[in-house]
Amino acid sequence: MTQRADGDDGAEPVLTSVGTSGWAGEPAVRTDRASREAVATDWSGHRPAGLPDGVVRARSTEDVVAVLRAASATRTPVVTRGAGTGLAGGASATTGEVVLDVSGMDRVLDLRPDDQVAVVQPGVLVADLDAAAAVHGLMYAPDPASAAIASVGGSIATNAGGLRCARYGATREAVLGLQVVLADGRVLRTGRATTKGVAGYDLTALLVGSEGTLGVVVEATVRLRPRPRRQATTTAFFPDVASAARASTAITRAGVEPAVLELVDAATLEAVDAARGTDLRAGGAAMLLVQTDGDGAEVAARAVLAAVEPWATSSETTTDAERSAELMTARREALPSLQRLGQAVIEDVVVPRSRLADAVTGVEEISRATGVRIAVFAHAGDGNLHPVLVVPEGEDVLSGAPWDAACRVFALAQRLGGTLTGEHGVGVLKRAWLRAELGDVAMDVSAAVKAALDPLGILNPGKAVVDG
Amino acid sequence: MTQRADGDDGAEPVLTSVGTSGWAGEPAVRTDRASREAVATDWSGHRPAGLPDGVVRARSTEDVVAVLRAASATRTPVVTRGAGTGLAGGASATTGEVVLDVSGMDRVLDLRPDDQVAVVQPGVLVADLDAAAAVHGLMYAPDPASAAIASVGGSIATNAGGLRCARYGATREAVLGLQVVLADGRVLRTGRATTKGVAGYDLTALLVGSEGTLGVVVEATVRLRPRPRRQATTTAFFPDVASAARASTAITRAGVEPAVLELVDAATLEAVDAARGTDLRAGGAAMLLVQTDGDGAEVAARAVLAAVEPWATSSETTTDAERSAELMTARREALPSLQRLGQAVIEDVVVPRSRLADAVTGVEEISRATGVRIAVFAHAGDGNLHPVLVVPEGEDVLSGAPWDAACRVFALAQRLGGTLTGEHGVGVLKRAWLRAELGDVAMDVSAAVKAALDPLGILNPGKAVVDG
Repeated sequence: MTQRADGDDGAEPVLTSVGTSGWAGEPAVRTDRASREAVATDWSGHRPAGLPDGVVRARSTEDVVAVLRAASATRTPVVTRGAGTGLAGGASATTGEVVLDVSGMDRVLDLRPDDQVAVVQPGVLVADLDAAAAVHGLMYAPDPASAAIASVGGSIATNAGGLRCARYGATREAVLGLQVVLADGRVLRTGRATTKGVAGYDLTALLVGSEGTLGVVVEATVRLRPRPRRQATTTAFFPDVASAARASTAITRAGVEPAVLELVDAATLEAVDAARGTDLRAGGAAMLLVQTDGDGAEVAARAVLAAVEPWATSSETTTDAERSAELMTARREALPSLQRLGQAVIEDVVVPRSRLADAVTGVEEISRATGVRIAVFAHAGDGNLHPVLVVPEGEDVLSGAPWDAACRVFALAQRLGGTLTGEHGVGVLKRAWLRAELGDVAMDVSAAVKAALDPLGILNPGKAVVDG
Repeated sequence: MTQRADGDDGAEPVLTSVGTSGWAGEPAVRTDRASREAVATDWSGHRPAGLPDGVVRARSTEDVVAVLRAASATRTPVVTRGAGTGLAGGASATTGEVVLDVSGMDRVLDLRPDDQVAVVQPGVLVADLDAAAAVHGLMYAPDPASAAIASVGGSIATNAGGLRCARYGATREAVLGLQVVLADGRVLRTGRATTKGVAGYDLTALLVGSEGTLGVVVEATVRLRPRPRRQATTTAFFPDVASAARASTAITRAGVEPAVLELVDAATLEAVDAARGTDLRAGGAAMLLVQTDGDGAEVAARAVLAAVEPWATSSETTTDAERSAELMTARREALPSLQRLGQAVIEDVVVPRSRLADAVTGVEEISRATGVRIAVFAHAGDGNLHPVLVVPEGEDVLSGAPWDAACRVFALAQRLGGTLTGEHGVGVLKRAWLRAELGDVAMDVSAAVKAALDPLGILNPGKAVVDG
């Protein structure tokens, strides 16, 4: 083994627990500096002080069992990694830790159209699963904006949301059962292969969103749904973002349940226009993008138009699939477009739907008060805002004015009766705020559950349920 | 205290922990025989050998805290009770145990239409919550057939399903957050008041369906949804139940997602006709009752008619609200109608949707082989069958031919890739089958979670997650 990192003595047995016999023709174990750097963090901007001791690329459940047995025997911390697209530092790893890369376990093992169920390995990309379902007229409903590059395993670990979850729920609602390797190497099966079932505690839901701290998902049985036969996409532009937020509440109040209800502010529209050559900003200082679906898609779209009318400067509905796809892509490209302008740190707060206008107004005030540029887009149907702090390259985003702005955003969400993370998770970045939200008893109970499943504390230590 | 039962010495401190100052003008503590008999079991037909030592009627969170502190101090088992309509013996209680009756905590504390959220106490009846939502054009989606008499707390404890959950999910999908008193009297808050949120482990989902073994729910924050503006109700009749099951699969295959998709067999139709004076049985030997809703309700109903056409002898759609309500009531009255014919023991198995026809055929074979009369109705959209064993009054349903038939039904469901309970829970009746379904590791993990939250094991001992 070359370039063995300084660190915990346990790393070596863990790294040698799996044969080096190749993963797509490459070694299963990597300890060279470039490989360790490649798995040291995710898309959050968080960078730990050191580098992990090495990375093991698992090809099978047996590999994962071997790694965790060795890790338990040597008390070596293990950080499980999927596609590395997390936004809260949940997959960041440092000296003394070994990264367990499951991205190569990427097969759709089974897909039963009549049961509307698929069985997949964790490394399957979310969009690939949805595409496999589409062949049968079905869909995998959870669709984080990163669906094309995010893995199913990672989206389970974070309980990822996305654009369609206003209507169809987040990843938790789509996961029926799991196969999970526990910290000591035991293989746990949870849930079932049916859409309904209540035998025993809901360990599936406990594991979804646990950010790699309770077990390693090696297989998931997920629910598919009929792919809507009709869709209508409505865009509406507004003179300011608060008006757009009020119009969003009006849509909800009208009893419409859109599949997608997205709000995009002026700064984001400008960034998307600059990146993609569109001219969305010319339409107004804020946009709502609303997709209704199902057999009543067009009827619902008319209700949307009526609901936004008092606030909108313009609005229109299209049922053209290509035009719809363009609009959805523009929205999905919001974050990458903002990333071209500097470091883009995406926050992920949720407020009760009726407080959406207060929240966007509050974020504007925070931007003015701190001097930090903040763009906002939102899954408005869920009250889930993504304020994006745009900070010059090289500036530390976890201190000074950017961190002050982020903290004010968290406080704003909690003050409005909301939560500090809607779909990205706590990771390392939001630990400092967790206790204030959950309270002492929930923190204690979470620690007790963690201890029950991972008594040695080797699974992704310092993430998700601990104070920061 | 009069008529103090023989039993655990701890009962007395628990029973005196709450003042006797009255609950709707009646004593908070009851130890008379009639009161103890009234809370000894639920609707499952299970009757423990003894009677509980007494019952405490809680009026507040503080009452529940006082009861559990005293119970912890004296290691007295506590059985929490809502409306007592459970079907698995989950609320049955015996000598040495104290019943904690929360049915009097029955207030809707808050209902925020623009947030589509309600905050309720556990004793609120499910149908009353839905009616409170309806005033604002909203609905509480979970609707067990017993909605008019079942409490929200009990439906959370069992993760109750119902007719609408094919489309809208079970109780778990509707519960956003909980306030729960733990075994030692600590008050735990879980979840949030927003439709989305991933801060910390999903303790809410862990508690939903835990059948009173992890804590006592004293408050729930639930999600409401827009009440569909349009509904269409389609009935189709078939020459036999297997044809109806195949037609149900065809509806799913056609990409329709009905709100309600119920299958009713000949024996059930006859019982309903006898009880209600209808003539449903004249239509055929099996019926599908399909409700589509939303703006595309009628378009979807046409797709339903097309899908069932190859199997149905007749079918028709109505959008008349009164006629729809009549049909739904007939279905909801299925179990009470069968109960007029003898002891009706309702089973609750689920199979993958594509195996529904195999399941109903299998149940018919079990009836023939055991000589036990079995009627079947099903939430066909979920693959959730309710075979109802109709046994002469006085015959023991938990031994001999009835128990043999029940066991064969469980084995059938598991053999077809299903589960032994879709929405009623394990309680005491299905414990013997639990390990075969969950496996040793899941049983061990469940025990570890139970020990983490209730280390003394005083909450509803012997239920839900233990071997029977």
